[in-house]
Amino acid sequence: MKRRSFFKLGSLAALGSTLVNPIDTFAGNNDISINSTNKKAKNIIFMVSDGMSSGTLNLANMFSNRILGKNSNWLQLYIDNKVSRGIMDMASASSIVTDSAAASSSWGGGARVNNGSLNISPSGEENLPIWQKFKAKGKKAGCVTTVPITHATPAGFTVAMKSRNDQSAIAEEYLRIGYDVLLGGGQKYFAAEHRKDKKDMFTAFSQQNYVVAKNKSDLKNTDKSKKLLGVFDFDALPYQIDRKQSAELTNTIPTLAEMTEVAINQMKDHNEGFVLQVESGKVDWAAHANDVSALIHEQLQFDEAIAVAMKFAEQDKNTLVVITTDHGNANPGMIYGKYANDHFDSLAKYNFTNEYILNNIKNNQSESQIKEFIKSSINVELNDEETKTIASYYNGLKKGDDGLYNYKHLPFSAFAEIQKKYNSVGWISMDHSADYVEVAMFGPGNHLHKPFMKNTDMHYLLLEAAEVENKF
Amino acid sequence: MKRRSFFKLGSLAALGSTLVNPIDTFAGNNDISINSTNKKAKNIIFMVSDGMSSGTLNLANMFSNRILGKNSNWLQLYIDNKVSRGIMDMASASSIVTDSAAASSSWGGGARVNNGSLNISPSGEENLPIWQKFKAKGKKAGCVTTVPITHATPAGFTVAMKSRNDQSAIAEEYLRIGYDVLLGGGQKYFAAEHRKDKKDMFTAFSQQNYVVAKNKSDLKNTDKSKKLLGVFDFDALPYQIDRKQSAELTNTIPTLAEMTEVAINQMKDHNEGFVLQVESGKVDWAAHANDVSALIHEQLQFDEAIAVAMKFAEQDKNTLVVITTDHGNANPGMIYGKYANDHFDSLAKYNFTNEYILNNIKNNQSESQIKEFIKSSINVELNDEETKTIASYYNGLKKGDDGLYNYKHLPFSAFAEIQKKYNSVGWISMDHSADYVEVAMFGPGNHLHKPFMKNTDMHYLLLEAAEVENKF
Repeated sequence: MKRRSFFKLGSLAALGSTLVNPIDTFAGNNDISINSTNKKAKNIIFMVSDGMSSGTLNLANMFSNRILGKNSNWLQLYIDNKVSRGIMDMASASSIVTDSAAASSSWGGGARVNNGSLNISPSGEENLPIWQKFKAKGKKAGCVTTVPITHATPAGFTVAMKSRNDQSAIAEEYLRIGYDVLLGGGQKYFAAEHRKDKKDMFTAFSQQNYVVAKNKSDLKNTDKSKKLLGVFDFDALPYQIDRKQSAELTNTIPTLAEMTEVAINQMKDHNEGFVLQVESGKVDWAAHANDVSALIHEQLQFDEAIAVAMKFAEQDKNTLVVITTDHGNANPGMIYGKYANDHFDSLAKYNFTNEYILNNIKNNQSESQIKEFIKSSINVELNDEETKTIASYYNGLKKGDDGLYNYKHLPFSAFAEIQKKYNSVGWISMDHSADYVEVAMFGPGNHLHKPFMKNTDMHYLLLEAAEVENKF
Repeated sequence: MKRRSFFKLGSLAALGSTLVNPIDTFAGNNDISINSTNKKAKNIIFMVSDGMSSGTLNLANMFSNRILGKNSNWLQLYIDNKVSRGIMDMASASSIVTDSAAASSSWGGGARVNNGSLNISPSGEENLPIWQKFKAKGKKAGCVTTVPITHATPAGFTVAMKSRNDQSAIAEEYLRIGYDVLLGGGQKYFAAEHRKDKKDMFTAFSQQNYVVAKNKSDLKNTDKSKKLLGVFDFDALPYQIDRKQSAELTNTIPTLAEMTEVAINQMKDHNEGFVLQVESGKVDWAAHANDVSALIHEQLQFDEAIAVAMKFAEQDKNTLVVITTDHGNANPGMIYGKYANDHFDSLAKYNFTNEYILNNIKNNQSESQIKEFIKSSINVELNDEETKTIASYYNGLKKGDDGLYNYKHLPFSAFAEIQKKYNSVGWISMDHSADYVEVAMFGPGNHLHKPFMKNTDMHYLLLEAAEVENKF
């Protein structure tokens, strides 16, 4: 493995030295009374809204402002001048447009890898993932996500594997390495009946000092002397807005904010500190589906997790919080027009995701039934031609989209194109974009934050903030 | 007229006092050795890339990096830690998605107005434009743009009128108020033969102590004891990339950077200082046309003007430079895919804008002639079906787009959709978006810059930076 120089970012002369006067270096966009720039970060909470274009942040904050009556927590941090901010170039080794595996690996391993790879460089070198580095220095380490816990973004901080696709193997790696908290979806990669090798990973984790949770109520019985694995759904957790419509889902599946709180509580008393990655993974899935209400409510779910992390960090005063995304996706935006405000506000009546709607249209439904079902779900009454278009995907006349998360070929793009007339939200595609991404930082270490950075710089910034020498 | 409170942003206790210790307030993302935070801004250069989505900044910087071999000047300011940065909410009084008139008026008048209006509030109040305030305090004031000098963005800093549309009247207002430097396009609003009222505004300006320039060589004969009006084209100036292909246009029409240099030189020795707005107006026009090479090269033209402004400001040390945009437009982005890098790099061979190409296809051209012409212009060989699609707009089978700047109804969107397959650039629409916009600031006054601001805050920030009491 390639050894990287000690403190690559380099303002710290030697391990444990205090930093130079912050006036002489980059002072950061922060309120100095809250952020101690010459302090070591004992803990790190790294928060990723996966696949968040700048328009996604805008849409979520406008929804929060206009419909919920308050700023999003993320934007409020800017208004209150509490965080530094910058933009980041997320290109991978193989492309100017990254995937989530290469993106997380750039932070996690400090080197760009090809799209699809987890901390294995193009030349085959293995880059030691940063959560392993912190574990080696005695910190507890964990990940929380709304998609399978074995998915690309948590995996990029935790394991090195040639491909992101073998999530069953990633589950085994997690156990071998012994991460302290793992919360998310993905039972199909843990349950014997769904794994190809028929291994019962739940039992294997239990046997190695893990509390294993499978629904929300299990989280009441955690034990700080043990580790914690929580896997709450077969694949990804349900979209927040669909979950809210179902008492069963609300009772059995925790939110990202709830999981974040459990994870912090589980690790916060550890003497050597902890590192935690928090991912709102379905912001990306919603963007891949051009699914506007899914997108906004997943971003707001992320925003609630920001509040949990910030509440802890502001009290703790030893915690660096990084808030960012791994790439743009679909570059959504509200489009100019006479009815822009009304169209935006109509999103308040979208009670279900497009995924829910398109999954629940049946092949034998009449056009009037389809029209009525859509009206009852999002308060939009399609005209006859639009209804016929949607129906054509269910009566075999047309085939819906391909796509990473759309194995049923539902007509997401056709539905989004129809909705555009009613909600004025546009999309450039159903895939990632090369846009530079937003980064905010709070707490000790954020004085290292520059207005523009490469994704790989993040790796060394996190080590330097925690004063962990990069010798492994 | 409504009087706004003195120093609305409010960290300065009294006119002329030194600022509180920058450690105790917002320190800004800047290198303190270059930026003097407790200094008054004698001069202000306010730079607007009109209609720049975050993807536009990304595309231009990638082009600069990959094709020209260096970072854009804007991004280099971030890398060098020389500027503060934040985002800004540009909503107008009438809409979450602004137009350029309401956007410029929010900065210029310190109040949100309805789309289309220039510093006239919804209730009919007139807000005194900020360049008039600075002129009243003895500063010289001017505007430079690549679109008509009477267009919305310069007009929002300089005049108050119910509608942005009467550009002939705006030309008269400029003369009445007596701005010191006006450089851009728009001869049709000045020349007697093109004005409805047949007034010869060029002669009128000459008679009131203006040097009047009509082509690039006239700019060699400016006179600092006089004012300067330069109007270099009938409407907007040509796109930068088309201009470069024509020796005649290159010789007769100045670039934005050249005009910026002339404007600064014309005003820089004035004892009371100067204020200058610099607009790259056709970034917006290119986005309205989904015209990728036009967009990138207009953004790069803006970037060259940044270098001119920064060179002056770094030497001068008394100049606040603001670099921003008034709204997103079309949210362009490079889309994920196996050929993303090659597709992006193919843009190096786009030698003409889509506007040039679509304007130069003739109704009687054969499909093979059209195919050959496009290939010779941008090195893209359309297939037969794509060629037929383009031809159908010239043989009367189809009608092209509507649009603010497309009175000929050329098929911009169809052409961009075809190009997407070859260059992987996507667009959400042909109009403005609500996205929050990027703001960078350099020099005295940038300590007032917060990570998130409302557009109207800018008005008071500029006054406070220059220590101009808001009593008019």
